[in-house]
Amino acid sequence: MKTILVPAGHGRAFRIGKGGRFRIITPKGQQSADFFAFCADDISEGLSPHHTWMPTRSLHPRPGDAFLSRKRRPMVDFIEDGADGVHDLIIAPCDPIRYEQFGVPGHRSCVGNLEEAMAALGHAVPQFPLAVNFFTTTTVEKGFMFSTPKTPVAKPGGYVLLEARMDLICAVSSCPYDLEGPGWAINAPGGPTEIVVELL
Amino acid sequence: MKTILVPAGHGRAFRIGKGGRFRIITPKGQQSADFFAFCADDISEGLSPHHTWMPTRSLHPRPGDAFLSRKRRPMVDFIEDGADGVHDLIIAPCDPIRYEQFGVPGHRSCVGNLEEAMAALGHAVPQFPLAVNFFTTTTVEKGFMFSTPKTPVAKPGGYVLLEARMDLICAVSSCPYDLEGPGWAINAPGGPTEIVVELL
Repeated sequence: MKTILVPAGHGRAFRIGKGGRFRIITPKGQQSADFFAFCADDISEGLSPHHTWMPTRSLHPRPGDAFLSRKRRPMVDFIEDGADGVHDLIIAPCDPIRYEQFGVPGHRSCVGNLEEAMAALGHAVPQFPLAVNFFTTTTVEKGFMFSTPKTPVAKPGGYVLLEARMDLICAVSSCPYDLEGPGWAINAPGGPTEIVVELL
Repeated sequence: MKTILVPAGHGRAFRIGKGGRFRIITPKGQQSADFFAFCADDISEGLSPHHTWMPTRSLHPRPGDAFLSRKRRPMVDFIEDGADGVHDLIIAPCDPIRYEQFGVPGHRSCVGNLEEAMAALGHAVPQFPLAVNFFTTTTVEKGFMFSTPKTPVAKPGGYVLLEARMDLICAVSSCPYDLEGPGWAINAPGGPTEIVVELL
């Protein structure tokens, strides 16, 4: 087993072959892990929340679901959920533009983390990647999305077990979001914490 | 005023300058209009449902909302809703791959319509476009998406009035979906009907 530590607010990328299993863990709990995946044989084909939820009709991924690419190919199977269903497909990954709009230009972001992590493997990032947000609380009520401290959050040690359905290049970002917004509790109040990836 | 007829199950593209207003109409009602938009100065920057709903937190667009690009720039303002809120941002536009998976290869699709329409203006389509689905019924309950005959559908003559916030290349597809699926009533039971676009 190889263990990858994703430092708080940073990102790491890794290659994994078809059939390989890996676990993503939030050791301290309530830390969003933005998970990106790209087909190794065509990096422009990335994971797509929109295409993923068309067969499942579920805005929250569950064990048994497959995460699909933009060409509707199964990329990753969701094998086991050790975080009580606290996962999201709706939120667009934060990026430098988002933080500029928040008035904090230069703030670390999930897309920035992805770019750094992919560059470390020698890859540029295809334009406008979307993510699965593990350990991320969202609730939709009457067509509106909420993420409040009242909604369930991922417990310490929460994890997901995943399996690659094809050769992949993946990246995980410990979401650096640490701003205060009304009714918006993405990460723990104390600030971002580390994520651990175990390649089994 | 210029009127564009989008034949049932087909698509049409048009250019519109900043400040231009246009109306999209379902004359017979309950006909999904997949609306695509691309920045005229960089066609790779398309409309993004994911980025659109981050500031509004609404999975259904409403008058007063702006549709954002993947760079979070306002592309189109939603001025007036003459279809009682029956609009969707969740559904990925149907494409040739989707119909292959349904067992009907070669079936017309919204992405195919987009490609035909853009080609008529001399443009290739950037990879994996996403759409706003006007006159499309979806409801999210307990995290699951539904589109049933029980949910409201767009009335005959239903329309949306929109305004371009930048120079745009737009396309509208009369969604060709006419398959039968349990609990899935995207278009009227009689099959796809025409959409009308009025450039005001």
